[in-house]
Amino acid sequence: MADEAPIGVFDSGVGGLSVLREIRARLPQESLLYLADSGHVPYGEKSPDFIRERCRVIAEFLLERGAKALVVACNTATAAGVADLRERYPALTVVGMEPAVKPAAQATRSGVVGVLATTGTLKSAKFAALLDRFASDVRVITQPCPGLVECIEAGELESPGTRALLAGFVQPLLDEGCDTLILGCTHYPFVKPLLREMVPSGVVLVDTGAAVARHLETLLVARGLLASGPARVRFWSSGDPSRLARVLPILWGENGTVSNCSV
Amino acid sequence: MADEAPIGVFDSGVGGLSVLREIRARLPQESLLYLADSGHVPYGEKSPDFIRERCRVIAEFLLERGAKALVVACNTATAAGVADLRERYPALTVVGMEPAVKPAAQATRSGVVGVLATTGTLKSAKFAALLDRFASDVRVITQPCPGLVECIEAGELESPGTRALLAGFVQPLLDEGCDTLILGCTHYPFVKPLLREMVPSGVVLVDTGAAVARHLETLLVARGLLASGPARVRFWSSGDPSRLARVLPILWGENGTVSNCSV
Repeated sequence: MADEAPIGVFDSGVGGLSVLREIRARLPQESLLYLADSGHVPYGEKSPDFIRERCRVIAEFLLERGAKALVVACNTATAAGVADLRERYPALTVVGMEPAVKPAAQATRSGVVGVLATTGTLKSAKFAALLDRFASDVRVITQPCPGLVECIEAGELESPGTRALLAGFVQPLLDEGCDTLILGCTHYPFVKPLLREMVPSGVVLVDTGAAVARHLETLLVARGLLASGPARVRFWSSGDPSRLARVLPILWGENGTVSNCSV
Repeated sequence: MADEAPIGVFDSGVGGLSVLREIRARLPQESLLYLADSGHVPYGEKSPDFIRERCRVIAEFLLERGAKALVVACNTATAAGVADLRERYPALTVVGMEPAVKPAAQATRSGVVGVLATTGTLKSAKFAALLDRFASDVRVITQPCPGLVECIEAGELESPGTRALLAGFVQPLLDEGCDTLILGCTHYPFVKPLLREMVPSGVVLVDTGAAVARHLETLLVARGLLASGPARVRFWSSGDPSRLARVLPILWGENGTVSNCSV
């Protein structure tokens, strides 16, 4: 038995498209709804209360459009809002993001792991708990990256400004001996090619998009929610839909129709 | 009596155009030759020996084209090469740039002055001597700005990357109580509008382009070298001439013909 209802995915902006790509690669028969909360990007420096409220209204919007599952494709929103969503919708499949501390702690040989993330994620209780649980034997150096989300939102994946900004965040981590870098924000995988140029070849870059897609698949299988297709993908933006439409070919890999949503 | 020979102006790239604008505003009857050494930009992290050699070959190129005076419209090149040029051409009018430490030391009320410049400029003996001479009574905080020249070379004067990069350089200076910021690189005046948005209205931004144009005028008058016009402006690039031509409307304010020079 198949469930053709779509999966709802959202982010503060376009970062979650890196997760959406992994979900589509793994589950090509699933219809997807993607909401970019670009009217309120970036989340990284907003209060947890504000972000929790955004999660609520966006979840309602996606559920009204028939979502059978929700993916909070944003680390900051997960830290602030996923527990609340699970409480409000106990029967719903809700998947969140978290920095891949456990795999990074297993991968490091130098014993020093760097975490690139937003201020909001790094300050969260959820992140502190992750470190306590999985990183007791390694040294973890955190690096907030103010401005990087904005560069990626603008589709500037290789501009001189993005390059210099990223270098300023990464170099201190390398100087401290990090051999493993966690991309703790769903926007950051879009600058992986740039990052790859900046770090020695032995340095491992860890992101969570693929693991989240796998986890989602496991849950859908277990709950009998897999679709058989055909799949349809729809996009909404709470900001300027034409702006999202413009970067879709770069970040999503093809054009898409973007609607405005005033949530 | 008028001397219609042109004034030769050069920089590692497009930064010197901020000085060229001041020269044209003050001396509109003067013909100008501008050479952007874009094949070797940025100078900021190159060795003084390398830069000195660049100054020599560029000076020869401009003198062969009849320059009656040279303006080294680059702080890093001035620190590394202007003394050498004066020694080689003792009869020539040679004007260089230096961070405006003296006016900044006079302007500050908080007693804390910030200097934004390249690593090359900040490391130079010339800069150390400037501080000794004019900044003994104020606290000076220096801030190298790696990557900023590249943003400006690309014509990215207001992109999210340039904005975030610049904010990362400026915020620590504000946190330290700076009320006066020296723009110690001729590229930086092009991001003055962006900088103005980032700093409180009481903060003074000091650059040297206008002072250099005034000084040049004084020397030309004293030496009987002023032109009466009509003026002609010509551009060369040691890099990609079409790239310079593309940013001229933004940085110079109008189109111009750019030739290739293989110096």
